[in-house]
Amino acid sequence: MAVYTHLNADQVRAYIAGYGIGPLETYVGIADGVENTNYLLFTASGRYILTLYEKRVNEADLPYFLGLMEHLSERGIPCPVPLHDRSGQTLGQLAGRPAALVTFLEGIARSRIEPGHCRAVGRALAHLHTASSDFEESRPNGLSLDAWEQALAESEARLENYAAGLYEEVRDDFARVAAAWPSSLPKGVIHADLFPDNVFFRDGEVSGLIDFYFACNDFFAYDLAICINAWCFERDADFNITKAAALLKGYEEHRALAAEEIAALPILCAGSAMRFLFTRLADWDSTPSSAMVRPKDPAEYLGRLRFHRAARGPDSYGLETA
Amino acid sequence: MAVYTHLNADQVRAYIAGYGIGPLETYVGIADGVENTNYLLFTASGRYILTLYEKRVNEADLPYFLGLMEHLSERGIPCPVPLHDRSGQTLGQLAGRPAALVTFLEGIARSRIEPGHCRAVGRALAHLHTASSDFEESRPNGLSLDAWEQALAESEARLENYAAGLYEEVRDDFARVAAAWPSSLPKGVIHADLFPDNVFFRDGEVSGLIDFYFACNDFFAYDLAICINAWCFERDADFNITKAAALLKGYEEHRALAAEEIAALPILCAGSAMRFLFTRLADWDSTPSSAMVRPKDPAEYLGRLRFHRAARGPDSYGLETA
Repeated sequence: MAVYTHLNADQVRAYIAGYGIGPLETYVGIADGVENTNYLLFTASGRYILTLYEKRVNEADLPYFLGLMEHLSERGIPCPVPLHDRSGQTLGQLAGRPAALVTFLEGIARSRIEPGHCRAVGRALAHLHTASSDFEESRPNGLSLDAWEQALAESEARLENYAAGLYEEVRDDFARVAAAWPSSLPKGVIHADLFPDNVFFRDGEVSGLIDFYFACNDFFAYDLAICINAWCFERDADFNITKAAALLKGYEEHRALAAEEIAALPILCAGSAMRFLFTRLADWDSTPSSAMVRPKDPAEYLGRLRFHRAARGPDSYGLETA
Repeated sequence: MAVYTHLNADQVRAYIAGYGIGPLETYVGIADGVENTNYLLFTASGRYILTLYEKRVNEADLPYFLGLMEHLSERGIPCPVPLHDRSGQTLGQLAGRPAALVTFLEGIARSRIEPGHCRAVGRALAHLHTASSDFEESRPNGLSLDAWEQALAESEARLENYAAGLYEEVRDDFARVAAAWPSSLPKGVIHADLFPDNVFFRDGEVSGLIDFYFACNDFFAYDLAICINAWCFERDADFNITKAAALLKGYEEHRALAAEEIAALPILCAGSAMRFLFTRLADWDSTPSSAMVRPKDPAEYLGRLRFHRAARGPDSYGLETA
């Protein structure tokens, strides 16, 4: 839960004075988000989000994230638009922290996912991938193979503590995934965290994509694998092939997948499941059981990893290779 | 920081369906508040606050609080208005908790207090006191003399831990306050927590009074004493007599103070400082030093208690008895 940094009205007023959005009418701290401090501002000209970047975001990456949001919004992606101050900057400083002012997006994240939502998300993801093709900045994916290898080495006790035998099981998965990881696939900017929380809908259509703070350059199909894990499993970790088929169909309405992307999906899905298994295990382990907010149970991603391990190939996902 | 209870869109939709406020457009969890969970909702008809009452509020008191807000709003006090559902109820149930839907108030709490704000708050407080004169429900003040006596008995270690000799000092204050506490003064409904956080301003005028969850029946002048402590001291615990004079002047523009109310102010102020000293000490003590949000330093209220102890009489507050 944010707000980590409390802002008084004078601080907010002083900050927005440089942006020409009119006088402050009301502002409220937003409880969502675990990385940054967010305030919702109302002025005569509309609603805005004021974000203070806390320690978990690397300041050096902020121009990439803000530049990307601006680039995408100019190409019709419904994402927050960073505002420029009078000197042309989108990145400012407030309460000793990097700060940015962005537009507020209407819409509601889905708690119940239906295949139609998956199709809409697939389309939005493909749109994001193509719209960023001429974005010139680049940022490596810091949460890929190398990071998993390190997480695995550091997680032996954590894995065993969670379930006996789990370290060996995941170590074998890692070896398998690392050996089969594609060396080249179509790549570019990916969102890398497009969970249902980060997608707003209105009237069944995607009205907003938020939280670009894991965006990086990697295989497009890996972003799709993240979405398959995030959108196409039921609560009990059962794979819903109808949702996956809808997601892929939506994606291909805007960008056709190459044969090698389809062939790589099972291994990319396993890698993505491993990525979230490791971060959830770490959060699980570092949160005292007395905490008000329980972290998400790693079991979800363990179940998905096991599903992908057992997958015969793309046809297990409702796909066929050419 | 709230949100303590996470609500998904389906839960919010299902709850508001009974209130005729139109379909949900957007909702965000609000970080403010330490007692309850609050969401800001946008629908076609406007903005609303959905509150879930968590453990710190006694459920049996909720009809008093909600009834009071409705009563006051009907008499022109700018406070949140509880909405009635189709069966006429203001108090509902959501996620296993008592819940209410109220109107959203525009305006901004002041971080820098000027005498003009104190005058406006004094006027608003007197308005609240007179507007509630025909409110028929009643709720005793659970944080008065008896509670302080108990808090004192339980706080010996806490007080000594905070500063050596403090227990004896506060024990003497309590004895003095208890002996001099008025037995009868004009009384009625008081807000009992009208801190700057709970008062919104727009264009220099009070546009909202919120957080009625300490409201109770007690001496009107005790509510004024709480406001003197909350609004008329500078950060270094120096008393600003200009602000106090403005607060009292504003109050008397709407409701004249009786001579015995003025005479009792120093002892009421000391009691009020003790009330907040005890709760802040408890919060201070129960919050681990690693916590993200530091509680407010009890020193502020210790300084105020010492000021009131040394006060000669009402003239120390810029007042004269008749």
